[in-house]
Amino acid sequence: MPQFLSTADADFDTRFAALLSMKREEAPDVDDAVAAIIAEVRARGDDAVCDLTIRFDRFALTPETMRITDAEIAAAAGQVAPLDRAALETAAARIRAYHERQLPRDEQWTDETGATLGWRWGPVDAAGLYVPGGLATYPSSVLMNAIPARVAGVGRLVMCVPTPDGVLNPMVLLAAQMSGVTEIYRIGGAQAIAAMAYGTDTIAPVDKITGPGNAFVAAAKRRVFGRVGIDMIAGPSEILVIADSDNDPDWIAIDLLSQAEHDESAQSILITTDAAFGQAVADAVTARLESLERANIAGPSWRDFGAVITVGDLDEASKLSNRIAPEHLELAVADPEALSDKITHAGAIFLGQWTPEAIGDYVGGPNHVLPTARSARFSSGLSVLDFMKRTTLARMTPESLRAIGPAAVRLATSESLQAHGLSVQARLDRLNR
Amino acid sequence: MPQFLSTADADFDTRFAALLSMKREEAPDVDDAVAAIIAEVRARGDDAVCDLTIRFDRFALTPETMRITDAEIAAAAGQVAPLDRAALETAAARIRAYHERQLPRDEQWTDETGATLGWRWGPVDAAGLYVPGGLATYPSSVLMNAIPARVAGVGRLVMCVPTPDGVLNPMVLLAAQMSGVTEIYRIGGAQAIAAMAYGTDTIAPVDKITGPGNAFVAAAKRRVFGRVGIDMIAGPSEILVIADSDNDPDWIAIDLLSQAEHDESAQSILITTDAAFGQAVADAVTARLESLERANIAGPSWRDFGAVITVGDLDEASKLSNRIAPEHLELAVADPEALSDKITHAGAIFLGQWTPEAIGDYVGGPNHVLPTARSARFSSGLSVLDFMKRTTLARMTPESLRAIGPAAVRLATSESLQAHGLSVQARLDRLNR
Repeated sequence: MPQFLSTADADFDTRFAALLSMKREEAPDVDDAVAAIIAEVRARGDDAVCDLTIRFDRFALTPETMRITDAEIAAAAGQVAPLDRAALETAAARIRAYHERQLPRDEQWTDETGATLGWRWGPVDAAGLYVPGGLATYPSSVLMNAIPARVAGVGRLVMCVPTPDGVLNPMVLLAAQMSGVTEIYRIGGAQAIAAMAYGTDTIAPVDKITGPGNAFVAAAKRRVFGRVGIDMIAGPSEILVIADSDNDPDWIAIDLLSQAEHDESAQSILITTDAAFGQAVADAVTARLESLERANIAGPSWRDFGAVITVGDLDEASKLSNRIAPEHLELAVADPEALSDKITHAGAIFLGQWTPEAIGDYVGGPNHVLPTARSARFSSGLSVLDFMKRTTLARMTPESLRAIGPAAVRLATSESLQAHGLSVQARLDRLNR
Repeated sequence: MPQFLSTADADFDTRFAALLSMKREEAPDVDDAVAAIIAEVRARGDDAVCDLTIRFDRFALTPETMRITDAEIAAAAGQVAPLDRAALETAAARIRAYHERQLPRDEQWTDETGATLGWRWGPVDAAGLYVPGGLATYPSSVLMNAIPARVAGVGRLVMCVPTPDGVLNPMVLLAAQMSGVTEIYRIGGAQAIAAMAYGTDTIAPVDKITGPGNAFVAAAKRRVFGRVGIDMIAGPSEILVIADSDNDPDWIAIDLLSQAEHDESAQSILITTDAAFGQAVADAVTARLESLERANIAGPSWRDFGAVITVGDLDEASKLSNRIAPEHLELAVADPEALSDKITHAGAIFLGQWTPEAIGDYVGGPNHVLPTARSARFSSGLSVLDFMKRTTLARMTPESLRAIGPAAVRLATSESLQAHGLSVQARLDRLNR
């Protein structure tokens, strides 16, 4: 059974604090193994990548066959059923349209001294997208990572996807083709991250690496950070639903299960103003688990980490939500906009009972790569900005230097940085001649 | 002597590649020591922080005296000379005006299906600013870190600054007061980072930590990343100057020295279209070093890491610059805008010979916290966005769910995520009744 809490209970604060600090995932310590793999790839390049692939993915690989050819991609994509292709196309078009609105503007202006100031955004030259093999191979993740990169203007978009026993995943390859991936390699694990970060004879290095992966991939991303940019290291998925009693308990139950089925460490929480409704949802979860295909995953997640919290009113709900800072937040209440205005920390908000979170996983438009583990307090979901960087611009005129240069000289002197001051003073001296 | 290279030389590619991959800093491995300090602060809170401060900073500290009082700040600020105060005020006003333009816009729109989509930006609740003690205590860094946070709307802005032997730095405290810091603690090192990340009885935890520091501080920031957000881990400073022969060699020499004087590991590079001008600049550097206060730092930096590169034309210069991806880039050429348009990777660009880089360190307006070690390929300088995060918003109507829901169900099925599909299908079934 999940936990049942109520803000009316005497021990609520203690139990809620315990819920917040609950450790849901014990990541295995693979850091030494990953360090060794990265060192091997840096030393032996393609040969190391091929050896590791043969060992972990059980098929023969040479530098010549590392890249999945256009013909292979086309053949695999051709196997996808037309309805699946159409669904991917709907998703891709909506994700593209949403992310195109994120393109930042360059700015330039002249200030009162005559100085020209501003900034300019530009894409990274090359991005690398990691796509896990096996169970968690999601074509939707390919779209969510690759499309923002292409919208940002990234010219070279590399994808690495392990193919255990050499088997290709048609939907993943079709999604890659659809979203403008320019090179695909059949490699995975820490060796793929190392190859993209440092380069090999076959794979030119990239500047930024994004995408989910297992403990080895996560540890490798942490290690190559600085050499290249990385996106966040995602933890297990979470959903918080705030619902009043005017909802179908079964809908809310399925919404909670749609996170729970991801991972035994996933967390689904319901906050409701009506304790009886909360119980009805919990009962509906139990009923749905009877027949759910992934009940062996969703069941333990709900049992170990699920919670139903009864609150006095929606204002109280918003305060608890802000302490949780959930990855996904559903507002299944009569006036979701009013409640949304009180939310300060959440990765993504789904407003109203016609907006199940799963819409956002596929076709809503916003990105489904979102901050987990309370990191929505300080970070955002994946966006076009993750594949761009900003260069600041400044141009002084003699007049503007005359106006503000003396303050710079004064501050440089106070910081004992003489050459800093001299570089301004030498120019001021010329003006004052 | 610095290195002299020319793109006309047969061995240029090899030597330029060596310059790019030059290792300039061997960070001491303090990770175990830092892990122990963090564990101690988590276990013993204020007491651990006080013990470590007594040990490292040589003065008695209790939880009661940890915070620098308003009276102490006012007294210290009162010691600052009026001209220094005025210079800080000029800098603060210009930095504030520049960063106010970075405030991002919220967006919301209705798409062709009737769905409402958008996003919303908000500040982090609390930010922590680390300010190093000792030699590298720069009031300008306080402004550059604190002002963007305040412009972002951060309500609680904590500053930690070590005070070796208990001595306060008046300019640093005045800068903090001027830029809206709300709490200042006289603690430093890994213990300060741990206290801000995890909180103690005296210091409530923050959500984001920024600011420079020594190897201990950098290692601590890496370790608390995830618990809180952090800014980049900065490496030694760099400048690249691209100059034609129509410049005063002495100006360019001082500009190169203004980075070299920061750190023996700093790197200053000149790219010029005129080999004789390059030699003249190198001679001017030598002459300036005769009398420079920090010649003991700037000299080794220029000798070990400095370089003068002669190119055939400015187009070649822009290509080399993009491979270097410099932190600071000065364009001391006749048409700096035209050259700037060819620059794809740089932290900050200073256009024209009246814009010495030092202007950007203090009073230009743009931030002086910038990506080092070639990371301008994929990252940006500090900005208002670093203290904000984005929440995505989506609201479906029954009609929009009818339009795009079936694609979501199809994709959920293809990914074997049954509950995802059911959460959409249950709502579609209601519509189709």
